[in-house]
Amino acid sequence: VLHAYYSKQMDVQHSRNAISWRKLFLSRAKLKATGNTSALLSGFAMVALVEIGIEPDVPSWLMVVFCVNTTLLVSIHLLAVMISTCILPHIEAVSNVHNVNSVHESPHERMQVFIQMAWTFSTGFGILLFLNEIVLICWIKFNVKTVNNNITAAWAATAVVIPVGILFLVFAFHFYRRLIAHKFQQTNMGLQDLDKMVTELGNQENDFNDIENV
Amino acid sequence: VLHAYYSKQMDVQHSRNAISWRKLFLSRAKLKATGNTSALLSGFAMVALVEIGIEPDVPSWLMVVFCVNTTLLVSIHLLAVMISTCILPHIEAVSNVHNVNSVHESPHERMQVFIQMAWTFSTGFGILLFLNEIVLICWIKFNVKTVNNNITAAWAATAVVIPVGILFLVFAFHFYRRLIAHKFQQTNMGLQDLDKMVTELGNQENDFNDIENV
Amino acid sequence: VLHAYYSKQMDVQHSRNAISWRKLFLSRAKLKATGNTSALLSGFAMVALVEIGIEPDVPSWLMVVFCVNTTLLVSIHLLAVMISTCILPHIEAVSNVHNVNSVHESPHERMQVFIQMAWTFSTGFGILLFLNEIVLICWIKFNVKTVNNNITAAWAATAVVIPVGILFLVFAFHFYRRLIAHKFQQTNMGLQDLDKMVTELGNQENDFNDIENV
Amino acid sequence: VLHAYYSKQMDVQHSRNAISWRKLFLSRAKLKATGNTSALLSGFAMVALVEIGIEPDVPSWLMVVFCVNTTLLVSIHLLAVMISTCILPHIEAVSNVHNVNSVHESPHERMQVFIQMAWTFSTGFGILLFLNEIVLICWIKFNVKTVNNNITAAWAATAVVIPVGILFLVFAFHFYRRLIAHKFQQTNMGLQDLDKMVTELGNQENDFNDIENV
Amino acid sequence: VLHAYYSKQMDVQHSRNAISWRKLFLSRAKLKATGNTSALLSGFAMVALVEIGIEPDVPSWLMVVFCVNTTLLVSIHLLAVMISTCILPHIEAVSNVHNVNSVHESPHERMQVFIQMAWTFSTGFGILLFLNEIVLICWIKFNVKTVNNNITAAWAATAVVIPVGILFLVFAFHFYRRLIAHKFQQTNMGLQDLDKMVTELGNQENDFNDIENV
Amino acid sequence: VLHAYYSKQMDVQHSRNAISWRKLFLSRAKLKATGNTSALLSGFAMVALVEIGIEPDVPSWLMVVFCVNTTLLVSIHLLAVMISTCILPHIEAVSNVHNVNSVHESPHERMQVFIQMAWTFSTGFGILLFLNEIVLICWIKFNVKTVNNNITAAWAATAVVIPVGILFLVFAFHFYRRLIAHKFQQTNMGLQDLDKMVTELGNQENDFNDIENV
Repeated sequence: VLHAYYSKQMDVQHSRNAISWRKLFLSRAKLKATGNTSALLSGFAMVALVEIGIEPDVPSWLMVVFCVNTTLLVSIHLLAVMISTCILPHIEAVSNVHNVNSVHESPHERMQVFIQMAWTFSTGFGILLFLNEIVLICWIKFNVKTVNNNITAAWAATAVVIPVGILFLVFAFHFYRRLIAHKFQQTNMGLQDLDKMVTELGNQENDFNDIENV
Repeated sequence: VLHAYYSKQMDVQHSRNAISWRKLFLSRAKLKATGNTSALLSGFAMVALVEIGIEPDVPSWLMVVFCVNTTLLVSIHLLAVMISTCILPHIEAVSNVHNVNSVHESPHERMQVFIQMAWTFSTGFGILLFLNEIVLICWIKFNVKTVNNNITAAWAATAVVIPVGILFLVFAFHFYRRLIAHKFQQTNMGLQDLDKMVTELGNQENDFNDIENV
Repeated sequence: VLHAYYSKQMDVQHSRNAISWRKLFLSRAKLKATGNTSALLSGFAMVALVEIGIEPDVPSWLMVVFCVNTTLLVSIHLLAVMISTCILPHIEAVSNVHNVNSVHESPHERMQVFIQMAWTFSTGFGILLFLNEIVLICWIKFNVKTVNNNITAAWAATAVVIPVGILFLVFAFHFYRRLIAHKFQQTNMGLQDLDKMVTELGNQENDFNDIENV
Repeated sequence: VLHAYYSKQMDVQHSRNAISWRKLFLSRAKLKATGNTSALLSGFAMVALVEIGIEPDVPSWLMVVFCVNTTLLVSIHLLAVMISTCILPHIEAVSNVHNVNSVHESPHERMQVFIQMAWTFSTGFGILLFLNEIVLICWIKFNVKTVNNNITAAWAATAVVIPVGILFLVFAFHFYRRLIAHKFQQTNMGLQDLDKMVTELGNQENDFNDIENV
Repeated sequence: VLHAYYSKQMDVQHSRNAISWRKLFLSRAKLKATGNTSALLSGFAMVALVEIGIEPDVPSWLMVVFCVNTTLLVSIHLLAVMISTCILPHIEAVSNVHNVNSVHESPHERMQVFIQMAWTFSTGFGILLFLNEIVLICWIKFNVKTVNNNITAAWAATAVVIPVGILFLVFAFHFYRRLIAHKFQQTNMGLQDLDKMVTELGNQENDFNDIENV
Repeated sequence: VLHAYYSKQMDVQHSRNAISWRKLFLSRAKLKATGNTSALLSGFAMVALVEIGIEPDVPSWLMVVFCVNTTLLVSIHLLAVMISTCILPHIEAVSNVHNVNSVHESPHERMQVFIQMAWTFSTGFGILLFLNEIVLICWIKFNVKTVNNNITAAWAATAVVIPVGILFLVFAFHFYRRLIAHKFQQTNMGLQDLDKMVTELGNQENDFNDIENV
């Protein structure tokens, strides 16, 4: 009976640890994906800014929008890169130590808000701004005198991006809804399991006391 | 007898888990391949858009088609990249936990439709659009006055792409047909195995009850 | 005797599995190598097409050849990339499951013809076309008025490529001959081994029956 | 009793080793992240310097600032790369030897100040300077006569970067504060554990002497 | 005695296998290194060929030399890439099978001459040709009218490369001499070991026969 | 006693092996780091050489210095790449064989001087030359008539690099001093350990002889 009692207690501890490790692995995978995608897209955006040839008859407001879009795009991705390179080493250091309890020494739970921010910036705003960038490049290259102000090409590019943007928002909405549903269901299951364990533990403790009292 | 009975039951459970893990690994491999190919091809397409020099005598409709094709190409690949970077960390986090049952906590079955979409977009439409892009670049570079409207070169490029496109469709058709045949045959085999196990289990249960009744 | 008999039977099964796994690993390694080389070379070819400046006095037939060569090169490599990204995830998924018998669930034997095609396209035609591309670029850059029609430079490049092409074909010929000789010898050895095992198994079975009959 | 005494002593030793290994893994992860980010960003900065076309009417002071910013950016990242490639092999060599005590032979504790320097340079100043670089490129490209001195675009880019810079500083401040709080709490916990162990060890030693004296 | 006899025989077999595995790992490492370096350098050479602007007053013989050098450089590296991608998958497939005897099924011993060729081409001629390429680019860029025929710069570049080329040859000479000395000494040691084992084996066999005869 | 004697002897052997393995891992890590950094920096330098536009009024001596610097930079890094790709496969082949004694068959001790040379070239001179390259590019781009001989920008870049160069030398000096101090201390410790072991071994041998003599 004694043995079962302790093994039960260790189960509770173990399943709490397992949930913590899962969160740690999720944070690590998110930060890694964030770093790579962000570096790639900000690199392309910067090359586009440096190498694009701007004709004198590009309308002034278009240049302003292009400038703001590029700067915002690069800034957001750099911020994501910085958050990723700041937090990732601390998580890596913990996940390399083969000690089940060391998970509580990782800063990924305190930094959760920054990890989430890097993630949303990089995959959310970052990709929308990048889609926008492509449309702006089309406007700058085709709505100029040297190619006879081919405004149709620029509008066509805009028309293509709109349904993609909508598809993007639909995916984002569904993804977060399903994720939350999934998380809710899982947490529920986890809580029920913990509840059941604690109850059993309580009963066993009583039994155990009874035995001791006898 | 009792031992065989439980080990049989665990076999059924185990083989269900094995199928789930296989699906998880397949989803992960697909998303990884998707991310890499998409990032590469969208990068090349964007460089082409920024660096191509467009002569004033390129026909207007050609610019429209080029613009639409490039935007569509980049959009589709970015959508695939986004889906990949959204779902992949959740799958990675699960596959790092060395617990056979944790497979059911991965969102890859609920997200199956998005994974399939990213996959089809990236390897299906994405590559067809890229082939198209090459032909359009040939038309823009060679059907202009500065190289004496070398329309033969442009048509030759178009002629080369057509059989490749057909080969592409033949492969896609055969691949999906064989895959479905393969999957059907495997599922059948799996079902028969499960069926056989369940039958045996039933028999054993009866035997077991008989023994108990005696 | 009974134990030896079963262990023999398992040996036969095991050695069949081992051959299947070897084929699976070979297919995986081929597809991986194919994907990387193809993406690299098609990327370089596309950059060359976009960035090359074509003078108006380049002969018309040269542009046609250049156009056909580039399109064919990119198409073939893209086809190889597509085949690779389609089949690879299914093979990866199987090779991650640590179950010796799961090798028969991999589609790499049914898809053998496509894997071989991707392989031959990517390393065979693909590299020959790339060598050709270099020579064509030399002709386009040096046989023009602005550098005084330096036809010697262009012919020199052509002269350099011819022995390399011959060396290439010699290697390809020897490689396939040796590979087939190697495979033939190995299959022979494998068959003899199996034959010997089966014979021994038969003998043992007889012995076993004899023992049982006694 | 004797066994418990030695195992306690080994626990103290072990937990000291564990902390050392954690520091080693943290240093390694930091240096790796540093090397990659720095190489990437310094590469982009150099490409920007070489490829940017500078109009004759760019104000003189702007060129000076751009020149200083680029040189500083590349220098800082190269210094980080050098520190990383100098120290990393010594840490890698130690972490490959599967001997728990070899951690004390790694130079990462003596070199702590340089590792911290590389880290701060690469993720701190490096990214701020890169944000600055983007704004300077916008000023150089848009505040020139050929695009009608579009000073609004340049100011817009500057306006975008300011809140990002503030967000950046807030994150840096919070990150270091939380990290220090986290480290303080952990060190405290570690010290208490060590203290408790030493006390217990002392008691046991006394017990042990008592037993021996008896 | 019997046991020692068989264990001795297995030692001989084992040490032959170990040497074969070492050769296999060496071949694999060589081919991998070859593939990466070659792809990188041939890529840079091709970019240089496409992007270099050739002034009309570059002497005709210089263009011929540049053309020959670039074509040779790219051809040699592509040949090395092809050999590498052809043989590597067969070696990878063998080294993934965890069967000590499967080493004899790898084609790396029959293909030794091609592996050595790829290796020498890629690291030997390939790098010498690349050094040459840099000098030729300097001559083409600086010995033209637009920069006032700065022949000193071109000669200075040539002067720098000569000592490096000599250092290169010295290293290559020393490397092969030491490697051969190392291999000779090792083979010697290996042969002596085998010799000693065979002698001991012979003695034991005699002893064994003596025992049997008794 | 006998057992302790042999286990002592194996300890001496083992600790000699451990030191050899550490050196091997250090050499491997150094060569890997060298290869990557060198390839990256030489690639950037070559792109800069090909793509930089040189105005006719750049002073002649500046072009000479730029030419020498670029050639030296690329040569030194290529030499480091070659040394790395030559020696690395031999070390990799040894470190893949899971035999503790095979460490003595690796050529990394005989080749120590070349490994050290590649290392010093790549991280020492290589990075200093790269810093120099940036300053030279600033001089070539800003000290020309088209941007009104902005000599201030060029001097500012030079002024920025000087403190970085000093910091670089301080780091290099401290790094080597600390490394040598560290190595000295460690060797000392190792020697004392060996000494102690040998002494104990001698004592035990005497004891052992005494026992045998009795």
